[in-house]
Amino acid sequence: MIRELTILDLVEDDLQRVEQKMRAMGSDAFGPLAEAFLQLLGSGGKRLRPVLALGAHGLFVGRASEKAVALAAAVETLHSATLVHDDLIDGALKRRGNTTLNAVWNKGATVLAGDYLFARAAGFAAETENLRVVQLFADTLRIICEGELRQNFSARQWAQPKDVYYLRIYAKTASLFASATCSGGILGGASPEQQQALYEYGRLLGMAFQIIDDVLDYTGDESLLGKPVGGDLLQGIVTLPFFYFLEAQTEPEKVIARLEPGVDKCGEASAEIVAQVRASGAIQSALAEAHSFAEQARAALAPLPAGPYRDALADLPAFVVSRQL
Amino acid sequence: MIRELTILDLVEDDLQRVEQKMRAMGSDAFGPLAEAFLQLLGSGGKRLRPVLALGAHGLFVGRASEKAVALAAAVETLHSATLVHDDLIDGALKRRGNTTLNAVWNKGATVLAGDYLFARAAGFAAETENLRVVQLFADTLRIICEGELRQNFSARQWAQPKDVYYLRIYAKTASLFASATCSGGILGGASPEQQQALYEYGRLLGMAFQIIDDVLDYTGDESLLGKPVGGDLLQGIVTLPFFYFLEAQTEPEKVIARLEPGVDKCGEASAEIVAQVRASGAIQSALAEAHSFAEQARAALAPLPAGPYRDALADLPAFVVSRQL
Repeated sequence: MIRELTILDLVEDDLQRVEQKMRAMGSDAFGPLAEAFLQLLGSGGKRLRPVLALGAHGLFVGRASEKAVALAAAVETLHSATLVHDDLIDGALKRRGNTTLNAVWNKGATVLAGDYLFARAAGFAAETENLRVVQLFADTLRIICEGELRQNFSARQWAQPKDVYYLRIYAKTASLFASATCSGGILGGASPEQQQALYEYGRLLGMAFQIIDDVLDYTGDESLLGKPVGGDLLQGIVTLPFFYFLEAQTEPEKVIARLEPGVDKCGEASAEIVAQVRASGAIQSALAEAHSFAEQARAALAPLPAGPYRDALADLPAFVVSRQL
Repeated sequence: MIRELTILDLVEDDLQRVEQKMRAMGSDAFGPLAEAFLQLLGSGGKRLRPVLALGAHGLFVGRASEKAVALAAAVETLHSATLVHDDLIDGALKRRGNTTLNAVWNKGATVLAGDYLFARAAGFAAETENLRVVQLFADTLRIICEGELRQNFSARQWAQPKDVYYLRIYAKTASLFASATCSGGILGGASPEQQQALYEYGRLLGMAFQIIDDVLDYTGDESLLGKPVGGDLLQGIVTLPFFYFLEAQTEPEKVIARLEPGVDKCGEASAEIVAQVRASGAIQSALAEAHSFAEQARAALAPLPAGPYRDALADLPAFVVSRQL
């Protein structure tokens, strides 16, 4: 049997055009900004979001139109903008082993560089010349920011309801995945029902992706992740593995008490709890949930046109949940 | 003779609708964000930018359409977003006597609140359902951010060319004024020539406005401005009064040498130079330039439909350059 084409094989040429478009953005900007952007763009993200936009568009028209390329650039540039601000907020000096912008620039310049990327992303979105895409894009940015704010204000609330977690990962990750696939469909001429199916596919895939991210934060290889294991817990961010871990405790309040800043002075309790979560059944429970979202994502593709793009998009969820990085 | 109607009289009702739209944004958001926005919106800005958008629109259709109200809200919300980030970058604890967001929130929440306002502004812009307006809006945000970045990277370059200053105040202020008036015209059905005239009017008015702002930084009343006199110089920002002051010096390099951080350890030299600029002819020269921009702004209105809106817009530049606050 001949090996099937992956979504990356199918959109490879289009993705090159997206890269060129984003690199041109770098060289348009003035000196120091141009350098920073080229480094940022070269730092080897997975480009999953533009692949989703191009793949969804490809379902209907194959090779991407200029507008679909602009959409994919908009989505990835928006993602980069949020990363620049996230790294600043977290004080992260490395991302995937590369130096972050805030590690070399002052706070002001880093805030502004993120803002500049938002502006360029908005410009790319406008290039689609589709008002629904522009509106969806603005809504998504709002949802992302609101989600990050909620996370900021709910830090160290160890016993928050699990619904808050789902809302947060929808806002943080799944909303942009959904916006990418839905917008790709809109530009490709998808029917309202198909647009809805693509939104669901992107949303469910994004949920699966973020749960895996949150699992890897506990189980991953520090050298591959480029950040310390258990970073979320150390920052007071409650994710799915911790929910399951806490649920399985006979005296959860005792675990929570150990995490209080005044008690856990040197982070020893946190480190120990990270190790306990890692060794517990919570990891398998969270992984099972990610697999369930992935399976639902695959199923959501049913109303979409059959062919190599749909087959490739259908394989993507399983790939996403099996990733180690 | 009956007193003529000012632009504020003409757009007063429409401006109320803009206020309502922006306040609804505040109450849409979740708890802490909603509170912060209501305070931010209530802190008594001049609302000059929405007035310009409504006034330019009114030239063609009188009372504002829903889309024109959305435009005006977009422009003011974008302005608010940039102020939130500016105050964070400058570490300003007060603006117009009111507490800034970064004075009460942590850095992360303040960055995100600004981002959230960008998102809402983009959403309002999309509500105009006009792709040219959306594109102009994205371009303007890009120009503003790039300008702020240039300012950040050119701080303490005391002998920079004056062109850099003009480029900077265009980016910082005049570009959004121009975008407001031009977009108002676009939504009102202005011809391309009229759109161009409105862009020029807004741009020239914005240049005059920012020069006055920069003069008031030297000459203003601290209690009215709510910030220390000479703040720009203390932050290393070179503005028009300082250019004229430096030009009139026989040995400008001696002035510059006194401003070096290592030399001016306690800010004594800066304070003395602020007083010298304030007492010098540089203030009059800068004011004369602001008046010249204002006069050009007035003249730019010639291709626009005659009537109360044009008369009122024609009076605005003189008002802007006479302001003390």
